[in-house]
Amino acid sequence: MRRAIDLAARGLGSTSPNPIVGCVVLDSAGRTVGEGWHQRAGGPHAEVHALAEAGDDARGGTAVVTLEPCDHTGRTGPCSQALIDAGVVRVVYAVADPNPGASGGAGTLAAAGVEVEGGLLAPEAAAGNAAWLTSVLHHRPYVTWKYAATLDGRTAAADGSSRWITSQESRADVHRLRAESDAVLVGSGTARTDDPHLAVRGVPGAIQPLRVVLDTEAATVKPGARVLDSAAPTLIAVAEDADTGALDGVADTVRVPRAATGSAGLDLTALLAALHERDVRSVLLEGGSTLAGAFVAAGLVDRVIGYLAPVLLGAGPPVLGEAGISTIAQALRLTVNDTERLGPDLRVTAVGTPAHEATVTHTATEES
Amino acid sequence: MRRAIDLAARGLGSTSPNPIVGCVVLDSAGRTVGEGWHQRAGGPHAEVHALAEAGDDARGGTAVVTLEPCDHTGRTGPCSQALIDAGVVRVVYAVADPNPGASGGAGTLAAAGVEVEGGLLAPEAAAGNAAWLTSVLHHRPYVTWKYAATLDGRTAAADGSSRWITSQESRADVHRLRAESDAVLVGSGTARTDDPHLAVRGVPGAIQPLRVVLDTEAATVKPGARVLDSAAPTLIAVAEDADTGALDGVADTVRVPRAATGSAGLDLTALLAALHERDVRSVLLEGGSTLAGAFVAAGLVDRVIGYLAPVLLGAGPPVLGEAGISTIAQALRLTVNDTERLGPDLRVTAVGTPAHEATVTHTATEES
Repeated sequence: MRRAIDLAARGLGSTSPNPIVGCVVLDSAGRTVGEGWHQRAGGPHAEVHALAEAGDDARGGTAVVTLEPCDHTGRTGPCSQALIDAGVVRVVYAVADPNPGASGGAGTLAAAGVEVEGGLLAPEAAAGNAAWLTSVLHHRPYVTWKYAATLDGRTAAADGSSRWITSQESRADVHRLRAESDAVLVGSGTARTDDPHLAVRGVPGAIQPLRVVLDTEAATVKPGARVLDSAAPTLIAVAEDADTGALDGVADTVRVPRAATGSAGLDLTALLAALHERDVRSVLLEGGSTLAGAFVAAGLVDRVIGYLAPVLLGAGPPVLGEAGISTIAQALRLTVNDTERLGPDLRVTAVGTPAHEATVTHTATEES
Repeated sequence: MRRAIDLAARGLGSTSPNPIVGCVVLDSAGRTVGEGWHQRAGGPHAEVHALAEAGDDARGGTAVVTLEPCDHTGRTGPCSQALIDAGVVRVVYAVADPNPGASGGAGTLAAAGVEVEGGLLAPEAAAGNAAWLTSVLHHRPYVTWKYAATLDGRTAAADGSSRWITSQESRADVHRLRAESDAVLVGSGTARTDDPHLAVRGVPGAIQPLRVVLDTEAATVKPGARVLDSAAPTLIAVAEDADTGALDGVADTVRVPRAATGSAGLDLTALLAALHERDVRSVLLEGGSTLAGAFVAAGLVDRVIGYLAPVLLGAGPPVLGEAGISTIAQALRLTVNDTERLGPDLRVTAVGTPAHEATVTHTATEES
């Protein structure tokens, strides 16, 4: 299963809106005879790749797959039937498919006399599919807030200068993160101050994310902004009543209700729903501190990736703005699940309670 | 030598004002026949312990030692002579002794026909003796700033609540840090707000550090303060013109000139010199943000140890106060040399340019 999880990860960034899936087929003697992973939406599923490689050796063998095999006919046929046809006698999967339109593969397999076992290494497999699982369960994209800061939590010096706090290695890593995301989102403050480009550079074969600017009044993004070039698609999110005349023919816009209270911004839940409708399954929040604070306040941050530079400033803008937290008991508590040195910097990844936590113990027994 | 460095580390916290030293004696066939480390100031040096264990097997053998053997008669005899008397024919050391009163051991050994080689794993060995080397070279203690903060650099929530941001594991680790330090220092703000105890708890055999409160006006520490109990010695640093009447018979005080400019505090260089005179070789700076900012501004922070909790607040006091840095080019840039998970938290250790960097390439050849 660990091998299958590794195979699945090769699809990160190119399978959306589908999940990533890896599959290993063993023959009746337990030898690996086929491997596959879901490579791109619309292409064959992992099981189909692995069965094709295994050929007749799959007969009497076992399929190990990171997600419960699908049971429906979409752009490809149902994998449950493909496994039965190939003569596989045992299927071990990690995560049950929570998608109402696709689940049931385990039941079909069991009804055909295939021994089915679910739940093996489910947490690890689910982590790789966090974006897809969040989308299926919450009907919104998985949100990662990425920031770069000094050890004392500043994103710039007192005079606003910030080039460069983090290293070249960290900045290259951000491009990898963008390539794994369906959309990259910034607020109007960042758009105005930094004129960011937001496209992926330096990642061979990367699929460009949708660049999204939250520009409530449609007053920040102007013709000539770098985010409007042809390197990647772009969407400007504006208020329902904003005057978008200046953007006509320049950029796609999406109208979103204003936030109900306080903030001058948009209703973030509605914004994420609009992105979900456009098949966006993962959003990388790149700035700035006000927008990040609003997402934290709305309970819409699933993962935080901090690039920490071993630098001290003692003054300058803080990395996270007002998030509606006034006392320690209300603090957003996460779990560190990865730390990595990137050149001189440290990357810390922390996650909230996974959306799929209720599903990872879902086994074949419960299916039937 | 790596073994000798490990042995040396066992003395951390109990040898001050002496360095930590480890020694391994090999017989003529290269087998380990003796090991030792400097255990406490006034006790035998590492070489003496190792030679005692080796006995006659040292004859014709090699001594591997983390610091150039001493050549002077202090509370113990010169190690150079002890090595010669034991019949050791080769001495390999890591760091040359920069102490004018003690160096010369390599020369004495070479003059007696012993083959001497210096510099092996010098950076690693020097790192363990950073406090002692800083003291010898700069005549001030080595300063470690320790902080505990959220991922977004806050030490408390907006309402001041902070129990607990970091975990029990992190708080226990701070006691280990205190045990390794000769002194623990806080500012009057922390003394007033937290009434901290600052003694070591839960570290078997720990030597209590000197508790130092920087109380410029002698107006903060009052009889009954926890820092004045008998668990550890305490020193109150006050301005030369402060009225210390309230502290008479209650606590030791030391008078230090006021800072020349701006700040209402004391001259930190003079404060460290006063601590150095009291044989303090390492200071752990525990709070608060104003004091830490003043130390950073004065260029007096050698090491930073941050306990980062995977928590977000978005508001609340920042971990580091004004440090006289207004633009990114003036930022204090450090080097991460260790990261460690402590329960849910992350401990990051970063150091400035080591004081001893000029000495680590100092070899026996240069000695003679």
